[in-house]
Amino acid sequence: MNSQSEILENLINNISKLPGIGKKSARRIAYHLINTSKDNALNTANSIIEARERLGLCIECFNLSEDKLCNICSDPLRNRDIILVIENFHDLYLFEKLKIHKGLYHVLGGLLSPLDGIGPGTLRLNELLNRIRMNNTSELIIGLNHSVEGDSTALYISNMLKDISIKITRLASGIPVGGEIEYTDEITLKQAFENRK
Amino acid sequence: MNSQSEILENLINNISKLPGIGKKSARRIAYHLINTSKDNALNTANSIIEARERLGLCIECFNLSEDKLCNICSDPLRNRDIILVIENFHDLYLFEKLKIHKGLYHVLGGLLSPLDGIGPGTLRLNELLNRIRMNNTSELIIGLNHSVEGDSTALYISNMLKDISIKITRLASGIPVGGEIEYTDEITLKQAFENRK
Repeated sequence: MNSQSEILENLINNISKLPGIGKKSARRIAYHLINTSKDNALNTANSIIEARERLGLCIECFNLSEDKLCNICSDPLRNRDIILVIENFHDLYLFEKLKIHKGLYHVLGGLLSPLDGIGPGTLRLNELLNRIRMNNTSELIIGLNHSVEGDSTALYISNMLKDISIKITRLASGIPVGGEIEYTDEITLKQAFENRK
Repeated sequence: MNSQSEILENLINNISKLPGIGKKSARRIAYHLINTSKDNALNTANSIIEARERLGLCIECFNLSEDKLCNICSDPLRNRDIILVIENFHDLYLFEKLKIHKGLYHVLGGLLSPLDGIGPGTLRLNELLNRIRMNNTSELIIGLNHSVEGDSTALYISNMLKDISIKITRLASGIPVGGEIEYTDEITLKQAFENRK
């Protein structure tokens, strides 16, 4: 009999589904959650529940938000003429940390990848088109990975906007081809942003 | 403004307190919990709450248990004459996986470490003494790390039992001095068990 308890195994099983955590780490974490103070453990559980119940998506840019509009879209100091298109929340966080983009964002929610069943309808491309039309956006910065999926998504966006008068730029050299924004060091990312073309 | 949301930061902060998880991994895990299906996320949270509310300690051996007696202590097929003393739940799990020990366990809850404020009163040593007296235990196997703390705990136990007629053995060669049971491969652990002295 290997199992100490079904409840424990269930906990380990759920933890091992988290990214980057294998079965052994999951077990260590589970024992920790059982051994730590009850407050600590329940705080962790409740912060997950709270995040799922109180966090939604900004109706404008699809950033994570507690309100209808995220704290970037509702910030009167941001330049509303420039939109930086990014793949996900994490990339938004990385750009914000650099404090180089003063405009708004648009979180696509993924990259085109037909083999994975991710077509244009899955991403927030129509919403991007509508935003640009409604707000007369003057510049769109494409901040997507330089990968096959990132390139084809960038191309799709350019085609989608070809009849609209807007400056389209893309993060330039600096991000290695095939590399991911998430793993780019801050200096390289800054250069790529400044040399956008 | 770096923060997308206080609720998110709170979640990341709680996750980063888990063993082996740094700030960056915590952020990835938090985004995953927000992006995955709501069911998945809530299952994870609820399994933590369930573990804290329904798991307690076996009143005999202090193993994790859903009932008063754990499934080892309540198993009529286990040899009640032999007790294997171990540091924590995880070591119990490792021994059970090997299926070599047919007796009972006693989870000490730590090792003597005066510098960390862990004295005999903090561990379940009196409970061990009472169990041995009550049940006329014939053999006590000390399955503690071969470290300074493990050695002094083993010595303390031997002294505590010096007036009682009981065979005391300790896991033998195989476990490297200074090494930890948790990181010992199964074959070595098996040998150490079989060559106990």
